[in-house]
Amino acid sequence: MSELTRYFEDFQVGDRFETPGITLTRSEIIDFAMRYDPQPIHMDVVAAAAGPYGGLIASGFQTLALSFRLFFQRGWFEDSSLGGPGIDEVRWLKPVYPGDTIHAVIEVAEARPSASNSNRGVRILDWETYNQNHELVMTFRAPSFLRRRPPA
Amino acid sequence: MSELTRYFEDFQVGDRFETPGITLTRSEIIDFAMRYDPQPIHMDVVAAAAGPYGGLIASGFQTLALSFRLFFQRGWFEDSSLGGPGIDEVRWLKPVYPGDTIHAVIEVAEARPSASNSNRGVRILDWETYNQNHELVMTFRAPSFLRRRPPA
Repeated sequence: MSELTRYFEDFQVGDRFETPGITLTRSEIIDFAMRYDPQPIHMDVVAAAAGPYGGLIASGFQTLALSFRLFFQRGWFEDSSLGGPGIDEVRWLKPVYPGDTIHAVIEVAEARPSASNSNRGVRILDWETYNQNHELVMTFRAPSFLRRRPPA
Repeated sequence: MSELTRYFEDFQVGDRFETPGITLTRSEIIDFAMRYDPQPIHMDVVAAAAGPYGGLIASGFQTLALSFRLFFQRGWFEDSSLGGPGIDEVRWLKPVYPGDTIHAVIEVAEARPSASNSNRGVRILDWETYNQNHELVMTFRAPSFLRRRPPA
């Protein structure tokens, strides 16, 4: 196990974590859109300029996955994560434009031992994603399963 | 406007649509994971073989975005979509392995004219994503805004 690893016992309700940021370039926005969300507002600068946001904006799926990644890339969960059953209440509150830098703030909303499996706990995390102007651009809630700390 | 365009009036509660499929290769699964969900179970064949699914599985965010894309790539909404506020109740029910072919079935759960804006309607779609063995691998619900048909 990595010395970075954090287990179920390392999280208490109310704990908050702030991630580093990532800058979304026009190139990455269009590349993601071509493969995963090919709508004009995410890949056609000319069409997007005439659209409701006055320009190209990132796919909400890209913002969602990056927000999740920014927390998981810390390396805390590579040996302890047991996956998650889903995601709830994804809300895209403001557009993310090329050049914007987003980061996430994650709060532990719930943490309880599994009733059916003594080696794991259930943890529910609330994500808030902000841009460089401290504007909230997205929120979502993610339950996940995490290993309990092995006996010393 | 494209002759493919479908407007709010073109959807009734209970209408169902089946998309074409897409085969998820190992290459695409690892490529997505490197950028958007770099967890061992999505990018390290050796580690994943020792994990709970006995092998590499696709990121749930990749399955989610592809399921959405399979419907939107029909070209019906390029001139009529006004975006959506979010996604609800994403549930990953079974793993998606390299070589699996997924497709989606979309049902109109709700459709109502906007109370505040006479040029649009609110449509709520329920997604079901299946693999080649007709197993349900994911579900989610997506509200979206769609233009009303312009007067002839």
